[in-house]
Amino acid sequence: MRIDVVTLFPDFFTSPLSTSLLGRAIANGIADVILTNPRDFTTDKHHRVDDEPYGGGVGMLMKPEPIFAAVESLPVLPQREIIFLTPQGEPMDQNMFKQLVNLDQLVLICGSYEGIDERVCDHLVTREVSLGDFVLTCGEIAALALINGTVRLLPGTVGKAESLKAESFEDGLLDYPQYTRPREFRGWQVPDVLLSGDHGKIEQWRQAQKLNRTSDRRPDLIDAYYQNTDQNPK
Amino acid sequence: MRIDVVTLFPDFFTSPLSTSLLGRAIANGIADVILTNPRDFTTDKHHRVDDEPYGGGVGMLMKPEPIFAAVESLPVLPQREIIFLTPQGEPMDQNMFKQLVNLDQLVLICGSYEGIDERVCDHLVTREVSLGDFVLTCGEIAALALINGTVRLLPGTVGKAESLKAESFEDGLLDYPQYTRPREFRGWQVPDVLLSGDHGKIEQWRQAQKLNRTSDRRPDLIDAYYQNTDQNPK
Repeated sequence: MRIDVVTLFPDFFTSPLSTSLLGRAIANGIADVILTNPRDFTTDKHHRVDDEPYGGGVGMLMKPEPIFAAVESLPVLPQREIIFLTPQGEPMDQNMFKQLVNLDQLVLICGSYEGIDERVCDHLVTREVSLGDFVLTCGEIAALALINGTVRLLPGTVGKAESLKAESFEDGLLDYPQYTRPREFRGWQVPDVLLSGDHGKIEQWRQAQKLNRTSDRRPDLIDAYYQNTDQNPK
Repeated sequence: MRIDVVTLFPDFFTSPLSTSLLGRAIANGIADVILTNPRDFTTDKHHRVDDEPYGGGVGMLMKPEPIFAAVESLPVLPQREIIFLTPQGEPMDQNMFKQLVNLDQLVLICGSYEGIDERVCDHLVTREVSLGDFVLTCGEIAALALINGTVRLLPGTVGKAESLKAESFEDGLLDYPQYTRPREFRGWQVPDVLLSGDHGKIEQWRQAQKLNRTSDRRPDLIDAYYQNTDQNPK
């Protein structure tokens, strides 16, 4: 998979893309991440990438020309999406990552300043994606989340393929609580059932924990779960 | 504000914390971000921070002792939260950042591997926070989002205080479309109203765009908006 990141701050990505599992996946060639700076596509002598909003308002906007030029300089692979990271987009979730991982190329445009000229969204971008209902200083963190969550699903990133299966959101529920050694820590015990060796009982306990926890913490998810599974809540 | 990040991958943060607006805010002392590695608090000769899950299952969990020891080594400021970043937590949003910005200290614990021993959540952590309904390889990206969104609200980070006001989610709605020069780009025009100089009309157009866009893209937000404002949808 080829991932092009169009960013005014390519330096932002240096350490996150070379650390931990994601760093190893990229070093191993499982995904290619290429950084392109719209500033390199300006044609004026001040290399200006921002300008004032029409109609008034505080802050500056990213100008359209350098972004169009940056994206149009990239090779075009058969299956691709051009994604703008913005709080106005559809919220990122696990299903989105599962779709994106099947593409050949992702082009990720990171916003900065107060926003971007809308003509970029209307005529260049194929999808607007949001990290969440909040404002950050730039789109680079959202791009990083999307890269991590998608590359993680490519074969070879996570050691054991199985360890993708049992995780949060694969079935629309939150995960069950997990415990490791020591068996007792400061007087707090690991639940007995996990020490029982009875795999059926452990499975039952975990499933019950997932349902309870999702229903306590995320009524929105539990409603969707029961609608999708056609099961009735107890 | 003091922000302690408890992370097995302190190198992850090098470039994001020194780039752009956030980098400048930290360099200017608006917030102190201190990285602490639980591995430095192991007592065995292999410096082990992970172990197998009780009850079976793939992958490894973070052991409780090094995390307790790392957090307990930190100074304790009067108002603080100890936050674990996990998909099982409450979803991050703009209101959460507005609460957190009033604290003296945030301690952010980043998970890795398949998860963390639940006793950390039960007996050390004061709040579990989620970046979104998806799985990433590590909690570092969520910590970065929380740091950015919170530090951004501290006086001095964003140049003009006003530029915090008119943004997405401050009123529970998505933002209106924005345009900058050139007035015509490849035949695509800036909407006439924005060139009219009539500030009342521009304001009206922008408000209508926010409502339409939120109602098209995020029915969940528009419902909450009308409930909160006690206005009726048209």
